[in-house]
Amino acid sequence: MHAYRSHTCADLTAKNTGETVRLSGWVHRVRDHGGILFIDLRDHYGVTQVLCDPDSAAFADVEKVRSEWCIRIDGEVKARDPELVNPKLPTGEIEVFVREIEVLGAAKELPLIVFGDQEYPEETRLRYRYLDLRREAMQRNMTLRSDVVASLRKRMWDRKFREYQTPIITASSPEGARDFLVPSRLHPGKFYALPQAPQQFKQLIMVSGFDKYFQIAPCFRDEDPRADRSPTDFYQLDMEMSFVTQQDVFDTISPVIAGVFEEFGGGHAVDAPGEWPQISYKDAALWYGTDKPDLRNPIKMQVVSEHFAGSGFAIFAKLLEQDGTEIRAIPAPGGGSRKFCDRMNAFAQKEGLPGMGYIFWRDQGEGMEAAGPLAKNIGPERTEAIRQQLGLGVGDAAFFLGGKPATFQTVAGKARTVIGEELGLTDKNRFAFAWIVDFPIYERDEETGKLDFEHNPFSMPQGGMEALEGDPLDVRGYQYDLACNGYELVSGAIRNHRPEIMFKAFELAGYGEDEVRKRFGGMVNAFQYGAPPHGGCAAGIDRIVMLLADEANIREVIMFPMNQRAEDLMMNAPSEPQGDQLMELGLRVIPRD
Amino acid sequence: MHAYRSHTCADLTAKNTGETVRLSGWVHRVRDHGGILFIDLRDHYGVTQVLCDPDSAAFADVEKVRSEWCIRIDGEVKARDPELVNPKLPTGEIEVFVREIEVLGAAKELPLIVFGDQEYPEETRLRYRYLDLRREAMQRNMTLRSDVVASLRKRMWDRKFREYQTPIITASSPEGARDFLVPSRLHPGKFYALPQAPQQFKQLIMVSGFDKYFQIAPCFRDEDPRADRSPTDFYQLDMEMSFVTQQDVFDTISPVIAGVFEEFGGGHAVDAPGEWPQISYKDAALWYGTDKPDLRNPIKMQVVSEHFAGSGFAIFAKLLEQDGTEIRAIPAPGGGSRKFCDRMNAFAQKEGLPGMGYIFWRDQGEGMEAAGPLAKNIGPERTEAIRQQLGLGVGDAAFFLGGKPATFQTVAGKARTVIGEELGLTDKNRFAFAWIVDFPIYERDEETGKLDFEHNPFSMPQGGMEALEGDPLDVRGYQYDLACNGYELVSGAIRNHRPEIMFKAFELAGYGEDEVRKRFGGMVNAFQYGAPPHGGCAAGIDRIVMLLADEANIREVIMFPMNQRAEDLMMNAPSEPQGDQLMELGLRVIPRD
Repeated sequence: MHAYRSHTCADLTAKNTGETVRLSGWVHRVRDHGGILFIDLRDHYGVTQVLCDPDSAAFADVEKVRSEWCIRIDGEVKARDPELVNPKLPTGEIEVFVREIEVLGAAKELPLIVFGDQEYPEETRLRYRYLDLRREAMQRNMTLRSDVVASLRKRMWDRKFREYQTPIITASSPEGARDFLVPSRLHPGKFYALPQAPQQFKQLIMVSGFDKYFQIAPCFRDEDPRADRSPTDFYQLDMEMSFVTQQDVFDTISPVIAGVFEEFGGGHAVDAPGEWPQISYKDAALWYGTDKPDLRNPIKMQVVSEHFAGSGFAIFAKLLEQDGTEIRAIPAPGGGSRKFCDRMNAFAQKEGLPGMGYIFWRDQGEGMEAAGPLAKNIGPERTEAIRQQLGLGVGDAAFFLGGKPATFQTVAGKARTVIGEELGLTDKNRFAFAWIVDFPIYERDEETGKLDFEHNPFSMPQGGMEALEGDPLDVRGYQYDLACNGYELVSGAIRNHRPEIMFKAFELAGYGEDEVRKRFGGMVNAFQYGAPPHGGCAAGIDRIVMLLADEANIREVIMFPMNQRAEDLMMNAPSEPQGDQLMELGLRVIPRD
Repeated sequence: MHAYRSHTCADLTAKNTGETVRLSGWVHRVRDHGGILFIDLRDHYGVTQVLCDPDSAAFADVEKVRSEWCIRIDGEVKARDPELVNPKLPTGEIEVFVREIEVLGAAKELPLIVFGDQEYPEETRLRYRYLDLRREAMQRNMTLRSDVVASLRKRMWDRKFREYQTPIITASSPEGARDFLVPSRLHPGKFYALPQAPQQFKQLIMVSGFDKYFQIAPCFRDEDPRADRSPTDFYQLDMEMSFVTQQDVFDTISPVIAGVFEEFGGGHAVDAPGEWPQISYKDAALWYGTDKPDLRNPIKMQVVSEHFAGSGFAIFAKLLEQDGTEIRAIPAPGGGSRKFCDRMNAFAQKEGLPGMGYIFWRDQGEGMEAAGPLAKNIGPERTEAIRQQLGLGVGDAAFFLGGKPATFQTVAGKARTVIGEELGLTDKNRFAFAWIVDFPIYERDEETGKLDFEHNPFSMPQGGMEALEGDPLDVRGYQYDLACNGYELVSGAIRNHRPEIMFKAFELAGYGEDEVRKRFGGMVNAFQYGAPPHGGCAAGIDRIVMLLADEANIREVIMFPMNQRAEDLMMNAPSEPQGDQLMELGLRVIPRD
């Protein structure tokens, strides 16, 4: 017989009755039932009930084991009495009578109980991660992550993509965050950087003629920690293709993403990838108040300025006299009660706005009545026109926000989310996708008035060189995001592969040719030797797994995460350098005051 | 029609005759045949001949293109005249008459010609890697690497292994080389390290109950560069299993490795994995002079001391009077000529030995004669006994080395290799594998007399705690390497998962419990909470691909390698830190004298 096991703890059924078996695993829990010891023996695959009565030669040793000891037992499989069969357990038809036991690894007193659902502080969980990971939910999350990544790979291979590894110890590749630096020993005073993304390398792979690239790529950003982001590194499905348009990228990656959500989405509906809407950045802001809309929520905001211009509602009427202002409505089907409307108004105030005006429609016996102060101020005709534009009726409400969109758009988006949730409009059993397209290339910094890249300096402007000669704020890029249930899942672009257009684009943002050559020299040089048109995208692995596992904290889907202070408590990182390490690197730590 | 291509440059055959097609790719070369321009248009998939005559409206534009310009052409597919069909080319039946051309990316004068086999200095190749990579051999090597890695993954999945990602920005995990350090911004004066291998993490994954782990894992070692190793990072197929013996690891990984060599080995014979010999470290040293023997070479060395003890060959006879000395023979079937024997003797002298004695056997008409000075010195009886022991005959030779094995073993191994090569004994069309087992846990430093770990401090000593109480130099570990054609391809061990045995093992090498807890605290702590027996191995990806691609330089199988001074000339790494990066990290560069 094998030294450790003839079966896993998920294998045995009534068919094995009478066999002598060997199992290894952890003591999940021990119970003493009238002198007979029952042990739930657990391994990665399942749990098997093993028991030992005082007649067994092994009894004295079995009595000593405690939770989370790793043991090996030999024993005989017996069928359970019909009334004791546990149909929830694959091994629930049997139990194993212990004849022999070997302790493979004893355990000290546990700082964290594996059995059950007791909550522990995150610091405890991370310090004893190897115990935390034994818990059922963590085993499930980690295997889910592994299976998702495997499925992504298979789907990319099926589409004739090859995975190529790009350097990790390399040059700075600015993506808007801080680089992690790595001091060079062979070149003291010089530093490598860990890549924020393989952006430049994947573009170089295209210039090298490889046509289709992907990588499950580690990305490194020295960012201040947040619950939904790792403070050091994260993984993305990075891909790039040559000789493609934006639509080609969508047609390639959409079924990959949809496929993974279908495979691992626990039966939730997944929008068919051919039908994912393409929404311009501008429309997304208007309709949803965000560039990562949650389309499970059917509410779509609308401009209703015309009904308030010159109306008796003085606040809005005056607002509209200023340039660049608008009134927008959030329709709320089913939200037609004063109580609900007041709660939403209070929500807007909590978010820092003066409040949200509203109208709601109710049946007052002889027909529909529009209620709320706004309706009175603007009168029945305008109120009715609004109702008709929004397609609302009895029992519904509408909320109104006004001013320059930038001042209220974000709150409007949040209000839309809350309304959708509270009214039960948001379909929780669905993954809803939309491509957000036509991102502006530039934005103007409100404070400095300086023009800067809105998103990514590597995107091709729609209209090419010609477009860059007009108003920069009008220039849209072949740049896109995929939104899913309110999160940005994918981001990408058709790249600017023409050096002359790239230099012009950077010039508008205030970067001279020298600066561009210095920062992106590798790529810019390459573009001078026959660069193909190319584009691609990157999908956030951690985010996809979080959505599929329905977890809000990224540390629930990473095997050994840092804590929020970017420390690994289990491995003691970061730590003081040893001996002459700094001397070898030609570095000195500046003493702190 | 698609914006860039209706077909790839490998697609068109006689079946497409008459179609109007669109192709994109690079100008591989241009020829002018009597005023007609022929272009070999190349993409990742193949080459298509396109041509343009002066009657075409596109002629003026086609005339301008140069090698490595990236272009898009529209044209009509025409069948070639039968005598012009190129059977070597998948598209050799047709050519495309250009109607329209678009320059997608022009190229400056090329520092490196893609077409043909011109050799360039490595610095040129790395600086213009995106041109170098367009060459046929590099396209082949990179796709091979990608396909090998994909195949390894599939084979591991088939064996129910899951891939789990381990941290890259983490704590030091000493494996005998220098760590790369990463300064922490949030904790100034403290440093992360990049892992030399995921050793501790994979063991923690086992302690966490995951049972089977693998990863195509990047490993980081700050080593002085060599041709066959990357100066910064390399990839390994890292795997670990719980509840296994050494033989289980062999049975799992052997068919994975064999499968990849069968799939990509270009038809070379691959030893059946069930038949790979297991050779003890000690026997490997004796028989092959190395722990990574090349078994394509059938020569096996033997101890022949008895034939020289007290013989007339005074040098060997005297040597044997000292403790720990031996005489070993290298049989050389077919090497029976004075010329060859003298050449091998000269080889040994070049390697720093006084020389190699030899005997060779020739037919001198009336029977076999043993020739060479050695044979005369020891006389016919001893000479004949040696011949019989080695199983040699007319036309064969044997070489002899004596002393303490450590002084000549390495040269003996090299001589064996050279003899095998020169005599054509080494089968070049074969991948020959052997597991080298029973590595000693400790070795004694000849100079200091200090005991140290021979290989890896994490291996389980055979015989456990009891073995550690005898002579440490006699302790063998459950530690193994896989040798293939003279290279170490895989290295692994059954781990020491018992804290008390681990502390004892470290104590023998002079490390106190405090030191062990400090250096390996994460893992040692974990072992106190029910650690399972576990073991695994790691296979070098770069090395596997080098063997399959028949390349001797690791930079031929890495997309964007560093040069031998650990610099990336294309991306300019390492480089001076920018602005306040060092200040943020609390670091100062020590000025150099």
